[in-house]
Amino acid sequence: MNGYQHLFIPGPTNVPEPVRQAMNIPMEDMRAPDFGDFVSGILEDLKRVYRLRNGRVFVFSSSGTGAWEAAISNTLNTGDRVLMSRFGQFSLLWADMARRLGLDVTLCDTDWGKGVPVDDYAAQLRDDRDHRIKAVFCTHNETATGVTSDIAAIRRALDDAQHPALLFVDGVSSIGSIEFEMEEWGVDLAVAGSQKGFMLPAGLGFLGVSDKALAAHEHATMARCYFSFADMIALNDTGYFPYTPATQLLRGLRTSLDMLLGAGMETVWARHNRLARGVRAAVAAWQGCRLVAEDPQWYSDTVSAIYTPQGVDARDVISTAYYKYQTSLGSGLNILAGRAFRIGHLGSLNPVMLCAAISAAEMALRDSGAVIEPGAGVAAAQECYRLTTPDGIEQPASQAA
Amino acid sequence: MNGYQHLFIPGPTNVPEPVRQAMNIPMEDMRAPDFGDFVSGILEDLKRVYRLRNGRVFVFSSSGTGAWEAAISNTLNTGDRVLMSRFGQFSLLWADMARRLGLDVTLCDTDWGKGVPVDDYAAQLRDDRDHRIKAVFCTHNETATGVTSDIAAIRRALDDAQHPALLFVDGVSSIGSIEFEMEEWGVDLAVAGSQKGFMLPAGLGFLGVSDKALAAHEHATMARCYFSFADMIALNDTGYFPYTPATQLLRGLRTSLDMLLGAGMETVWARHNRLARGVRAAVAAWQGCRLVAEDPQWYSDTVSAIYTPQGVDARDVISTAYYKYQTSLGSGLNILAGRAFRIGHLGSLNPVMLCAAISAAEMALRDSGAVIEPGAGVAAAQECYRLTTPDGIEQPASQAA
Amino acid sequence: MNGYQHLFIPGPTNVPEPVRQAMNIPMEDMRAPDFGDFVSGILEDLKRVYRLRNGRVFVFSSSGTGAWEAAISNTLNTGDRVLMSRFGQFSLLWADMARRLGLDVTLCDTDWGKGVPVDDYAAQLRDDRDHRIKAVFCTHNETATGVTSDIAAIRRALDDAQHPALLFVDGVSSIGSIEFEMEEWGVDLAVAGSQKGFMLPAGLGFLGVSDKALAAHEHATMARCYFSFADMIALNDTGYFPYTPATQLLRGLRTSLDMLLGAGMETVWARHNRLARGVRAAVAAWQGCRLVAEDPQWYSDTVSAIYTPQGVDARDVISTAYYKYQTSLGSGLNILAGRAFRIGHLGSLNPVMLCAAISAAEMALRDSGAVIEPGAGVAAAQECYRLTTPDGIEQPASQAA
Amino acid sequence: MNGYQHLFIPGPTNVPEPVRQAMNIPMEDMRAPDFGDFVSGILEDLKRVYRLRNGRVFVFSSSGTGAWEAAISNTLNTGDRVLMSRFGQFSLLWADMARRLGLDVTLCDTDWGKGVPVDDYAAQLRDDRDHRIKAVFCTHNETATGVTSDIAAIRRALDDAQHPALLFVDGVSSIGSIEFEMEEWGVDLAVAGSQKGFMLPAGLGFLGVSDKALAAHEHATMARCYFSFADMIALNDTGYFPYTPATQLLRGLRTSLDMLLGAGMETVWARHNRLARGVRAAVAAWQGCRLVAEDPQWYSDTVSAIYTPQGVDARDVISTAYYKYQTSLGSGLNILAGRAFRIGHLGSLNPVMLCAAISAAEMALRDSGAVIEPGAGVAAAQECYRLTTPDGIEQPASQAA
Repeated sequence: MNGYQHLFIPGPTNVPEPVRQAMNIPMEDMRAPDFGDFVSGILEDLKRVYRLRNGRVFVFSSSGTGAWEAAISNTLNTGDRVLMSRFGQFSLLWADMARRLGLDVTLCDTDWGKGVPVDDYAAQLRDDRDHRIKAVFCTHNETATGVTSDIAAIRRALDDAQHPALLFVDGVSSIGSIEFEMEEWGVDLAVAGSQKGFMLPAGLGFLGVSDKALAAHEHATMARCYFSFADMIALNDTGYFPYTPATQLLRGLRTSLDMLLGAGMETVWARHNRLARGVRAAVAAWQGCRLVAEDPQWYSDTVSAIYTPQGVDARDVISTAYYKYQTSLGSGLNILAGRAFRIGHLGSLNPVMLCAAISAAEMALRDSGAVIEPGAGVAAAQECYRLTTPDGIEQPASQAA
Repeated sequence: MNGYQHLFIPGPTNVPEPVRQAMNIPMEDMRAPDFGDFVSGILEDLKRVYRLRNGRVFVFSSSGTGAWEAAISNTLNTGDRVLMSRFGQFSLLWADMARRLGLDVTLCDTDWGKGVPVDDYAAQLRDDRDHRIKAVFCTHNETATGVTSDIAAIRRALDDAQHPALLFVDGVSSIGSIEFEMEEWGVDLAVAGSQKGFMLPAGLGFLGVSDKALAAHEHATMARCYFSFADMIALNDTGYFPYTPATQLLRGLRTSLDMLLGAGMETVWARHNRLARGVRAAVAAWQGCRLVAEDPQWYSDTVSAIYTPQGVDARDVISTAYYKYQTSLGSGLNILAGRAFRIGHLGSLNPVMLCAAISAAEMALRDSGAVIEPGAGVAAAQECYRLTTPDGIEQPASQAA
Repeated sequence: MNGYQHLFIPGPTNVPEPVRQAMNIPMEDMRAPDFGDFVSGILEDLKRVYRLRNGRVFVFSSSGTGAWEAAISNTLNTGDRVLMSRFGQFSLLWADMARRLGLDVTLCDTDWGKGVPVDDYAAQLRDDRDHRIKAVFCTHNETATGVTSDIAAIRRALDDAQHPALLFVDGVSSIGSIEFEMEEWGVDLAVAGSQKGFMLPAGLGFLGVSDKALAAHEHATMARCYFSFADMIALNDTGYFPYTPATQLLRGLRTSLDMLLGAGMETVWARHNRLARGVRAAVAAWQGCRLVAEDPQWYSDTVSAIYTPQGVDARDVISTAYYKYQTSLGSGLNILAGRAFRIGHLGSLNPVMLCAAISAAEMALRDSGAVIEPGAGVAAAQECYRLTTPDGIEQPASQAA
Repeated sequence: MNGYQHLFIPGPTNVPEPVRQAMNIPMEDMRAPDFGDFVSGILEDLKRVYRLRNGRVFVFSSSGTGAWEAAISNTLNTGDRVLMSRFGQFSLLWADMARRLGLDVTLCDTDWGKGVPVDDYAAQLRDDRDHRIKAVFCTHNETATGVTSDIAAIRRALDDAQHPALLFVDGVSSIGSIEFEMEEWGVDLAVAGSQKGFMLPAGLGFLGVSDKALAAHEHATMARCYFSFADMIALNDTGYFPYTPATQLLRGLRTSLDMLLGAGMETVWARHNRLARGVRAAVAAWQGCRLVAEDPQWYSDTVSAIYTPQGVDARDVISTAYYKYQTSLGSGLNILAGRAFRIGHLGSLNPVMLCAAISAAEMALRDSGAVIEPGAGVAAAQECYRLTTPDGIEQPASQAA
C-alpha cells in the first residue's frame, strides 16, 4: 500500500513487464517434442547478444558463480598457471575459486578503483615465452567498484605477445548492458547471469565459449558433472538439457532476448551510458562524495560505487534508504564496507527512475550526516537527461522537448 | 526494457503488489456455495472504510459514474429539486447528469479553485421552509481542481436549518484516501470507485447508502434495473449479486480492504497528507507555478492541480512528460486545458515515487519553457519527506534518520 | 495444493493463459495520447467478431445485464410495444427488465426446452399491420436451458411481414462461440459479455448496434446517462470513453480478440460444436438423464442443461461436484432448480478438459443416487473426440491418430 | 484459446495458484537487512518437510542433479568405495556421476521394475568387515520406472551390520510427496528438487544433510566451489547465500512450504497414495497394459510407468497425447523407450485432474492401436476416488456423497 520498493542494486535488476508476464505461466514438459526448437532459438539468440558468431553459449541452472566454475573446470587442468587481477570483491572471489579448483594463480592486483592492469598483463605475457600461462582472467565490469576494464586491450596484449592463453572474462554485470564483442575481442569464455542486463530473476548462468575453448575442453580433465560441457553439448544439440531446466526462466529469457535484440545491442549500450552519465552528474554534485572508480576510463555504465563524505557511514545511508525510503541501494563490499554505497543502473530503467534513486540517496545521505545541498544531485541528473536523447546523444536545450 | 511507466494521475492509481497477485487468478463460479460468505465479508468491510455503522454499501460493476446514477435513480423522483455546486469538471458532470435524469437542479456554482460554498448552501436551505429541496449534492474532492470541500460543514448547515434533504457526496477521489466519516457526517449517499484510494483497476463503483436513503428508496419511482437497489439488496443479503459480478476485481478488493483496514484509516489519511505536503512544497518552489486550489482550506491530499507559468502550455508539459519521460500526469480539464496539469498523489505511493513524479514534472516544465531552477521542486519535497515520519508527523532533523 | 478447481459453468469461462498474462499489468492512463488508437482497434475488431460491417459496437463497464438496459433505453420509448418470448431464466429476466423500463411487452412464451417460437412471432408480425410492435426480442442462446434459437428465421419472419421492428438479440452466451452473423441476419441490437466466449473475467458488456438502431436512437427519449449511446459515441469516435474504462480488461480483450480472429470465427464455432457433441454423447450414455433442450434443432453448442434421473436431486449433484470433486457445474435455475444441472462448454476448453467435467459429473451423479454405469459418459465423449478433428470433422478410426 | 495444456509428467508438476501468485513479483535485494530472516525461516521449514531434527538442509540454485553432485563432492573422497544399485534411468545416471567424480562404485543392479535390492546390500555390508564402503546410495523413488524402494530397510541393513557408511538417498520424486523420514531412517544425505512435490518451477536443488554427513564433510577433499557446503554454511548461518539466490523461487517456496506444512506431511502422503491408487486401478483395467513396477511393494505413489500392450509403440501414445489431446505424459526412458509411458501423479493434483489424464491416455492408446474398452480406465479410477475420502480412507458407497 505504501508504493513499490525501489530497486537500484547492480542485480537482480528490475524485470520489465513483458518479461514478468512471460514468466506468469503454468509449468510445461521440458521433454515436449516442440521444446527443442524453443531452446535452440534461445541458444542462437544468446550468441547474438554475446556478439559471437562461432562457438556456443551454455545456459546453466545456476548463478553466475556456477558459470565461473563451469568455465574453469571444463577447459583448464589442475596446476595450470593462470593470470588474474584482483581489484574488487568479485575479481577477488573468482581468484579464490581458481585457487580452490587447483589452478596456479599469478596475481596482478591493482587498486580497488582501477581496472585490469593491461600493462602488467602484457609484461607477464611477453615474459611467458614457454607459454606456461594457460589462461588470462579479466573481470570486465567489477560490480563492487563500478569499474569497467578494457578487454580489447587485453586481447591486443595477447596478440602482441603471440600468446595462446585462453581469455576468460567475467561479464556478469556487463554482457547485455554495455559494449561486449566476444568474437571481435577474441574472448574464449565469457560468463553472464540472468539477473543483470538480461532483466530476469536470478537462476540462470550463461557461458559463452569460443571454438578455441571448446577445443581446449577436449583435453581438460577436472572432474565435473553438473557443469559438464560434454553433457550439455550432447543434449543442447538436440534442443534439450541434460537435466530439468528452469523452464519458467527460459520463457522469460525468450522475451528478454526479443527486447534486447529488437532494440539492437548498440541502442541498449547507448541507453546504459546515458543513464550512467546522469548518476555520475549527481555524484559530482554531491559535496564530499566521489566515485570509487578513479578515472573516467574506468567508469562503469552499469553500476556506480560512491564514497560517502568523510565521517558518513555508508551503512547508515543504505539502511536509511531501505527502511525510511523503501529503496534498495548496493552496499560497499569488503574493504568498501561503510565507506561506499552503490547505485545499480543497469537493466530496465529510465531517467525518472534514476531521479528517484538519486533522491532516495541524497535524502539518506543527509539523514546520515552528509552536508549536501538538497536536490543538488537530482538537479544535475535532470539536466543530463533533459539534454540528451534516449540514445544518449546531446541535444541543445532548444530542442529538448 | 526502458523501465516502468510512471503513473501519477488521480486514478487509476498504482496497484500494490499484493492486490496484483490477488487478481492473477483463474475464473471462479460466482454462484458457488461459499462465494456468498466471501461477498458478505467484503460488503461488511467496505462499510468500515466508509465509516458507516448502519446502512449498506453497494458494489456495482461500473465506473463511479454508474454509482452516481444509482444514487439518484434509486432515491429521487423526476422533478425533485436538488442543490448542487459546480466548481470543476466532475461536479459539472454530476450536475449535468442530474438534469438529464430529470431533476430540478438549483446551482450554487463557485470558482474553479474553491470548494462547495457552504454559506450559499446554508442560505438556500434556510430559505427552503417548505422543504422543496430533496437533496444536497457535494463533490467532496473535485478531482479536476484538487479541491476538497467541507462535508461536515454542509451537514451542520442542514442540521442548523433542520432540513431533511438527503446529502449526496461524490467521494470518488476521497473515500479510502482522505478523512471521510459517512455516519458521523450524516452523509446519505456516497459514491466511490475502485481505481482511486482502493488501488484497484477501474471497474467497480461503490455506493454507501444510509438508512435514511434506503427509506427514501421505498418511494422512488424512476425506472432503473441495472442499478436497482432492490435487486441488489435481495441478492446481496444472501451474499450474491443480481448479475455476474467482476469476481477478479472482488478478489483484488478483498486484499485492498485488508491492507486499508489493517493499516487503519487514520494512518491511511495521514499518509496521504504527508505525500501531498511534499508535492505542494515542490509547487511552491516552482517559480511561476501555483495550485489551482485557491486557499489551504481547499488543498486536496489526493490530487494537486497546478497552473503552469504564464506562457507555458500545460499540454506541452503533459505530452513531454509522457513521451520523453514515460510519466503520466493528469491533464487540465475543460477550462483548465492548457493552463494546468495535475499530479495524482493517492493510493499506493511513497515519497521516493513522488520525487520521481516531481522530477518528471520539472524536467517537462523546463522543456516546455518554464524558467524553474532545476531540482528546486524535488529539493523542497525531499526536505518535507525527510523531516516527517511516515504518519506525517514533523520530526527534528537530528532524529530524521 | 489439491490441484486446480474445475470450472464448467456457462460463464465466467476459463481464461486462456495469454489473456491472463495480458491482464497481469500495472495500471495506465486512460487519457494517454496513444490510448485512443488502442481503443479504436478494439472497437473495430469487436465488429469483426459480431460480423458487423456497418453500425458499431459499444463496450460498457458493466455486466451483460447493463448492455440489455443500454439497448432498450437508447432505442425505445416508454410504452413501446415489443414482442418477447420466455423459455428460460434469462429470457424471463430480460422480459422483466423490459416491463420495468416501461415497455408494453407482448409475450409469446414457450416451454423451457424450446427456443423462440418463430411461427408465433411470424403470426404476430403479420397481424401487426400498423406496426405497433417496435421491437422483437430474441434470446439467441438461453443459458438456463441450453437452447439455441434461430435468429435468421426471425429475420425472415420480419422480412416476410415487411415489418420494420428492431431486432434485439441476447447473444451473451453465443457471440464469440457459436455462429452469429449480425449484419447478414439483420440484427439491430446484440448483447454480449466479456465472461463468456470472450474468455475474460466479467466486467464488460458489449452491445452491437446497427445503423438502423443508431437512427432509432435519435428519437429515443428514455432517461439514460451511464449507458448513453450519445456520450459513448462522442468519446469513442476519438478512441476514448466518457468515464474511466476498465483498462485491465481492455488489455485482456485485445489478446482475446487476437486469438479469436487469428483462429477465424468459423474455426471457433466448429470447435464449440465438436466440444458440445462430446458432452451430448455423454448425456445420451447416462441412463435416466436427458437434455433440457427438447430437440436437436435447439441444442446449444455452448451449454448443456441436463435433467437428472427421477429421484436424483440436481442440487446434490452440483454440491457434491463442488465440495468432493472441486468442480463447478451450473445449477438449475428457477423451475429447473433441483431437476437439472448444467455443463458449460464454451470458451477456452479442449476435449480432455471436458472428459474431466464429465467424469466429475458422473461421479457426482452416482454419489447422488443415479444408477449410471461408471465411465459410460466419458467413454462416449472420448469416442466422439477421438474420431473428429479439432474442427469437428469426423474421421475414420484408422486415421484417428 | 483451446484450453489448458494438461501436465502429467513426474515433474515439473502443476504449480498451485497461491505459489504462482507468490512468484508474480518484482525483484528484490538479496542482501536486504530483513532478507536473512526470510531465508532462515525457509531453511528451518525445509527440515520439517524432510523430517529432520538435526543437521541442515541446503538450497542450491541448480537442478536435483546439482544436489546429487553437492552430496558426493562434499562428503566423499576420490577413490572411496560406494555401494549403488541401478534399476532405472535416474539410478543409472547417479551411478554414472559417482564414477565420473572418482568414486569406486560397487554395483548391485537389479531389474528395471524392482527397487533397491535390500538383501544384496545387506550381504555386501556384512561382508565389508573393514568398512571400505564409505557410502550406500539408494534411489528412493525411481522416476523412470515408478518404483519406490524401502529406505528404512536399508537403514536396518546398515545397523544390523553395524556399518558406519553414509546413507545417500535420491528423494527427488519422493520428498514432499510420499513418506520420507530422514531422521528416523538415519539418512545422511537426501536430494530433492523444487519441481516435484514442492510444486515449484525447476531451479532449486535441495539437500538434507545429517550431522554425521556434516562431520564427514570436514575431511572431504574433492574440489568444489559452487556446491561447497562450507561456503553455504558460512552464509546460511546469517540467513544469506554465497551467491545471488533465485529470490523468485524462494518466494514461491515460502508459500509451498506453508501449504505442505499447513496440511501436514501425513495428509500430503495420504493424498498421493489415493491419487496413485486411482491411476493403478485404471492401468489394471486397460487390457494388455501393466505397470513397470513388478510388485505392489514397489508401487510408487508419485509416478506410474506403464507398459503399452504388445505392438503398441509408447512413443505414439505420448506423441498423440501431446499433439491431439494437449496432454503431456512422461516418456519411457532408455530401455523403456517405446515400451512404456508414464503418468506423473505428484504435486498439486486432484481426482478429476487424473480422470482427465487417464482419459487422454486411453484415447491416445486406442488411437495408437491398443484394444482397450473406451472409458474402462476412467471408470475404474472414478470408483476408486468416489469410494475414498480425500485422505484416501475407503468409505462405503452409501456414504460416498
